Amino acid sequence: MQVILTNFTPESERAIAAAAKLSTSQLSAVELKQRLSPEQIDNLLSQLISSGHLSPFEHANFTFVIDGISRVASHQLVRHRIASYTQQSQRYVSLRKLNYVTPATIGAKRELEAKYREMVQAAHKLYCEMLDAGVPAEDARYVLPSAMETKLVMTMNARELMHACSLRLCLRAQWELVELFQRIKQEVEKVAPRLGAELKPKCFALGYCDERQSCGLFPTLKEIKGGVATSAK
Amino acid sequence: MQVILTNFTPESERAIAAAAKLSTSQLSAVELKQRLSPEQIDNLLSQLISSGHLSPFEHANFTFVIDGISRVASHQLVRHRIASYTQQSQRYVSLRKLNYVTPATIGAKRELEAKYREMVQAAHKLYCEMLDAGVPAEDARYVLPSAMETKLVMTMNARELMHACSLRLCLRAQWELVELFQRIKQEVEKVAPRLGAELKPKCFALGYCDERQSCGLFPTLKEIKGGVATSAK
Amino acid sequence: MQVILTNFTPESERAIAAAAKLSTSQLSAVELKQRLSPEQIDNLLSQLISSGHLSPFEHANFTFVIDGISRVASHQLVRHRIASYTQQSQRYVSLRKLNYVTPATIGAKRELEAKYREMVQAAHKLYCEMLDAGVPAEDARYVLPSAMETKLVMTMNARELMHACSLRLCLRAQWELVELFQRIKQEVEKVAPRLGAELKPKCFALGYCDERQSCGLFPTLKEIKGGVATSAK
Amino acid sequence: MQVILTNFTPESERAIAAAAKLSTSQLSAVELKQRLSPEQIDNLLSQLISSGHLSPFEHANFTFVIDGISRVASHQLVRHRIASYTQQSQRYVSLRKLNYVTPATIGAKRELEAKYREMVQAAHKLYCEMLDAGVPAEDARYVLPSAMETKLVMTMNARELMHACSLRLCLRAQWELVELFQRIKQEVEKVAPRLGAELKPKCFALGYCDERQSCGLFPTLKEIKGGVATSAK
Repeated sequence: MQVILTNFTPESERAIAAAAKLSTSQLSAVELKQRLSPEQIDNLLSQLISSGHLSPFEHANFTFVIDGISRVASHQLVRHRIASYTQQSQRYVSLRKLNYVTPATIGAKRELEAKYREMVQAAHKLYCEMLDAGVPAEDARYVLPSAMETKLVMTMNARELMHACSLRLCLRAQWELVELFQRIKQEVEKVAPRLGAELKPKCFALGYCDERQSCGLFPTLKEIKGGVATSAK
Repeated sequence: MQVILTNFTPESERAIAAAAKLSTSQLSAVELKQRLSPEQIDNLLSQLISSGHLSPFEHANFTFVIDGISRVASHQLVRHRIASYTQQSQRYVSLRKLNYVTPATIGAKRELEAKYREMVQAAHKLYCEMLDAGVPAEDARYVLPSAMETKLVMTMNARELMHACSLRLCLRAQWELVELFQRIKQEVEKVAPRLGAELKPKCFALGYCDERQSCGLFPTLKEIKGGVATSAK
Repeated sequence: MQVILTNFTPESERAIAAAAKLSTSQLSAVELKQRLSPEQIDNLLSQLISSGHLSPFEHANFTFVIDGISRVASHQLVRHRIASYTQQSQRYVSLRKLNYVTPATIGAKRELEAKYREMVQAAHKLYCEMLDAGVPAEDARYVLPSAMETKLVMTMNARELMHACSLRLCLRAQWELVELFQRIKQEVEKVAPRLGAELKPKCFALGYCDERQSCGLFPTLKEIKGGVATSAK
Repeated sequence: MQVILTNFTPESERAIAAAAKLSTSQLSAVELKQRLSPEQIDNLLSQLISSGHLSPFEHANFTFVIDGISRVASHQLVRHRIASYTQQSQRYVSLRKLNYVTPATIGAKRELEAKYREMVQAAHKLYCEMLDAGVPAEDARYVLPSAMETKLVMTMNARELMHACSLRLCLRAQWELVELFQRIKQEVEKVAPRLGAELKPKCFALGYCDERQSCGLFPTLKEIKGGVATSAK
């Protein structure tokens, strides 16, 4: 898997802070943007997050090239609807070269891994054979396994990145998506460290784990006896 | 493939017309809704469409149960972001029973179809074997072919249905999606014939075919020499 | 202010539960919908909410006719982007009849209220005078006060209703919107009591108040010394 | 009215073209982005537009500071839901300084303009008086005219900019929005001339005017006797 941040809103944290400040100020956004000190920006972002006023984070956009995730992962990824995707087409591109993903639970067992590999190779061989026999790529691909790699370009704003990470950085999420969003977080941290630090699983905001079983990072509500969040219900 | 309309806005055409009328009237929407005659409703819908004022169509929603499309088709379908989907999970459901789709270009060739069937069955057999060996369903599925059937519930409003059909009823669209939206159109026609009639490929609105090659229904712009739309550019 | 629920997804709670069940079941959605008992539906909705799996709630839609809110309120309302609106146009409708909203903080002071009323009436009189002088309604309206009443049709799904209520049922929200969403909640409760009960301010889900000052329903994080949510940060 | 482009996707046209090319190529998006010549970019954008494949245009985002439009205009503007807005709050900001918009149809008539000006000033004076009397700004503003100026930050992607301009650059649109989107177009043209050139009223794409009466730029369908688009219906 390869994730590269290819485009992003320059000075994104400043842009978010200036927009937020505008809503309660008589100064113009241009003045605000110039005047804000790094400390003020930091404080503004903290206030926005702690009070749940997240819409200013939409003014910062990030475009990633994502290469080498499986069709399993891409099918889940594009369910995040508040984002833009352009994906390599299996209708128009003939995938003569075999690239596929192997889950660790399969890769760890030598015998299973061999069977898995042979099956994927056999399916891909039949795919090529069907192409040679004149079957259109868009139909031949039906035989291709879900493990096949795909690539896509994704643009997502910082608010939706925070939302997606709250779900997908949870270790209960599908493992390819966990890795994908970990890499996305790393890319964002390089150019916008303050924003990158806010990309974290939902338990950090909740203060507890809302899955059936916790990974250990935070206790579940059941485990917190007499805690605040339970008494509130 | 099975498509069943399970829920929909009652009297959807009346609801759309009443909302549209409200925007230019002093009467209340409740009065408007009661008073509109079938002819007035029909005229209002025609005006909205011919003038491109499509937002009132969003007040009519349709929920479909879709069963037996391939993962190829579902991956494309969920790219329509202005809709709601709940799909059978391959993470949590073990697909011990094999159901899959065969494209006509493969099904038509006896020898190819046999190879295709055997490959799909072999992949599914390995999937079951991996489940038995303790591989989680969410990982074992990587070996499953894209042809595997899935099912989902989709809710889409009438405006987005018109948009999706403008793309997906075009015969150049992927064949499973063409069939899916033909069935969707049939379901809508049963309960809202006027709306159902508006579900049609984009060439009807354009007056020409904007694909590289026409299916014959409308000529391309190149084929229309000296036509209106070309001279306008 | 008048709020009337004019259209809604029939049996909305059953529809949501059936869709949710589909994602982890081999049964068809149609079977599921028929078989689910009221208790099962209730349990499913509770599980979805406590685990934050809210997307199935999008399959239930509600259409309201809203009459008699100010332009102040409508301007804020339409900021909820995941919804559909058709609003009475001030461009095409001449508002010869004066209907306007008076905030309680003004209405409570007799002298101020008189000045307010006279000013609104004077502005409306000039509006009518400009119409008579041939000024188009879309320009004459610039003189109309923000207090002017408007009406609109709004369709929103249950997930977005829960989100909007989490913000707008907070007593710190603008008072017209608080009242609007209280009435919306009452309307939903009539036809879908279980869903209606889930329409509540955000503090119920958080277990604390995230505004600067609490209305008293829940304490703020600062007020909760050594509580769970604070220690989690 | 002041419109300033404060942030935008760098090299936006190249970004769009690279994403589009990815969908039908085996090269990586990074390679594609580097290799594309200006001519190739130009050709790709033209193909995307003529074939209606507009989703790659979503990868380019533009952030504008908009200052000095009326609340009339801002209420309409935020109806474009596929965009992000942060607007100056009339709840939290006391507007002691009077800034307002005068429509040309009023400004052109000396006597009317005087009455209009006096009315706006009187309303604003009462607003200040109410603030002094302890009425919260969020309530006092009910008396303010719709002509009051507001400011906001808006982020919109290139696809939605094309859509919004198709509606709002039509001379039948509300005149403030026409001017606003003309300025937006000018700002985009400075940094992305090819994209800026695509921001135009819908009649250019249709080849005819779909309003009741044409501004003269294109004839209506009725005026085009026996034309292509009519025969297609």
